[in-house]
Amino acid sequence: MLRVPFDDLYEALKRAMHRLGLRECRAQLCARLFAETTRDGVYTHGLNRFPRFEAMVRNGSIDVHAEPTRVSGLGALERWDGRCGPGNLNAHVAVHRAIALAKQNGIGGVALGNTNHWMRGGTYGWLAAEQGLFAICWSNTLPNVPAWGATTPSIGNNPLVIAVPRAAGPVVVDMAVSQFSYGTLASYSKRHKPLPVPGGYDAAGNLTTDASAIEASQRALPIGYWKGSGLAIVLDMLGAMLSGGNATHQFSDEPLRETGQSQIFLVIDPASLASGQELDRIADGIIDSLRHAAPIDPAKPIRYPGEQTLRLREENLRLGVPVDPEIWNSLRAT
Amino acid sequence: MLRVPFDDLYEALKRAMHRLGLRECRAQLCARLFAETTRDGVYTHGLNRFPRFEAMVRNGSIDVHAEPTRVSGLGALERWDGRCGPGNLNAHVAVHRAIALAKQNGIGGVALGNTNHWMRGGTYGWLAAEQGLFAICWSNTLPNVPAWGATTPSIGNNPLVIAVPRAAGPVVVDMAVSQFSYGTLASYSKRHKPLPVPGGYDAAGNLTTDASAIEASQRALPIGYWKGSGLAIVLDMLGAMLSGGNATHQFSDEPLRETGQSQIFLVIDPASLASGQELDRIADGIIDSLRHAAPIDPAKPIRYPGEQTLRLREENLRLGVPVDPEIWNSLRAT
Repeated sequence: MLRVPFDDLYEALKRAMHRLGLRECRAQLCARLFAETTRDGVYTHGLNRFPRFEAMVRNGSIDVHAEPTRVSGLGALERWDGRCGPGNLNAHVAVHRAIALAKQNGIGGVALGNTNHWMRGGTYGWLAAEQGLFAICWSNTLPNVPAWGATTPSIGNNPLVIAVPRAAGPVVVDMAVSQFSYGTLASYSKRHKPLPVPGGYDAAGNLTTDASAIEASQRALPIGYWKGSGLAIVLDMLGAMLSGGNATHQFSDEPLRETGQSQIFLVIDPASLASGQELDRIADGIIDSLRHAAPIDPAKPIRYPGEQTLRLREENLRLGVPVDPEIWNSLRAT
Repeated sequence: MLRVPFDDLYEALKRAMHRLGLRECRAQLCARLFAETTRDGVYTHGLNRFPRFEAMVRNGSIDVHAEPTRVSGLGALERWDGRCGPGNLNAHVAVHRAIALAKQNGIGGVALGNTNHWMRGGTYGWLAAEQGLFAICWSNTLPNVPAWGATTPSIGNNPLVIAVPRAAGPVVVDMAVSQFSYGTLASYSKRHKPLPVPGGYDAAGNLTTDASAIEASQRALPIGYWKGSGLAIVLDMLGAMLSGGNATHQFSDEPLRETGQSQIFLVIDPASLASGQELDRIADGIIDSLRHAAPIDPAKPIRYPGEQTLRLREENLRLGVPVDPEIWNSLRAT
């Protein structure tokens, strides 16, 4: 495994953003969001995702100059148009707007339509949590999972992020509502490793742990079977109805043309309800209680969502950020 | 199966509420919420749950006279104290308050602590959706599911409700974040029927479809394994931190003493963003798209969440509401 200093990764990404036509400030932020995602250990959505981002700028799916604009709203709720700009820059604006609305009203919501893949969804949860706020955010996607009872993809694996502030380290769920994201399936099939639990159906309709069989059948499993299927449907409905943007069924099924996502950013500021001290006491009590359950394997203590992030961040800053040599070399060569 | 007219069920429940000491208006509402739950086909949380409600009034866990009060808040976000009143009456107040906040601010949030089991969570989603609003609501519970990696229950199966308004019928997810609620497990084990998919682990630690083995081991499976486990943790954190009420680890593990739940009610009013016509067009487009996927079994069309509700409601009003004869007779005898 190749490790490179964080600053080198950031600088190489920034130069690449310049080459794609992003102006200085936006190139800096876009590069930083990509680099920080890899730094935090979410390898599928950082540097490894850059070639796809680049291809979508080149084919016109992403307009690097477009900035999101407010379309309508009332009080603490607003609809924004992402104008097909870079998804992480758009989402960064949207979550900051939801944060501002929450600071003013206790709770704030932004529905962002006509945007692009937000890359690592957890980014926007961490941003809110690091300011002492709660966030619930999600995106729809192209149809990549069959609805419960169907054999052909008709729902998205719509990533869902729920972030909780906590002085000792935010607690952040960042998950696709399929059992495994396609990024994760790809990472298992590339290594020819079986999935830890069944992740979908093979071509014959049997549950399987063979990631490549699921990539081939396109029959990934929603979490909790019918439950995740229902969840994907309502997340898509809220996203498309509130933002006025694409619903899952309106996307192109070509991944490199998957543009026009609908995303929701809900932020809650607890300042009017409780002191930071009271909130931390409750949060720490819940995390402590998890440690008291009997583990299946005494060598594997029970973890909370996002627990690995700060450890990986520290390790990757200290030792260098792991990169795929091929993608890294190609990034620097162009 | 015994079927009784809806009005008879309602009247019998109302008389029972009077016997428990509820004043007229509250007896009417509480009875109606129980009766409508059975009418809508959610049998586990309607009449079948009344004996447990009654026992918890008798043992002092539920104070039939307590009404919820506003504790603190800012703008569109409020904390309420349920004062251990009847859970469905408290939740009814809370969702109506969140609806009022949303109508004023576009989005509204109420955190309700110190309350009791809300019975059918979907009730509060339907209430919002029938007014043209979106709702996201959840409750925590006592520890009844092991966190991922643990053998002993340490997280709740925290029911989550997401409701979408739609003229042709609201779309409502109402689900526990365990693969099966304990109500559902009980219904399978009572009928000695295997679960349709594995629902947890047996005493030996193997995944099983035997509901009674899971009731015995107390090792129910969260939806999506580690994903539902993470979801349960953050839902509990938001509930307890925002309401100041119990977290899952603070509940008694005796079901008849499970009191002091923390619940969240988020409501979104889309009126400032889009017309009802635009919203329905988008919603209907999504529902229609589900019909176009190839079904596994051509005889089983793909359904959306909550689709069965209106059909069951109509059928049960027409033919009579199905009741458990034993519970029904005991309700009328006392």
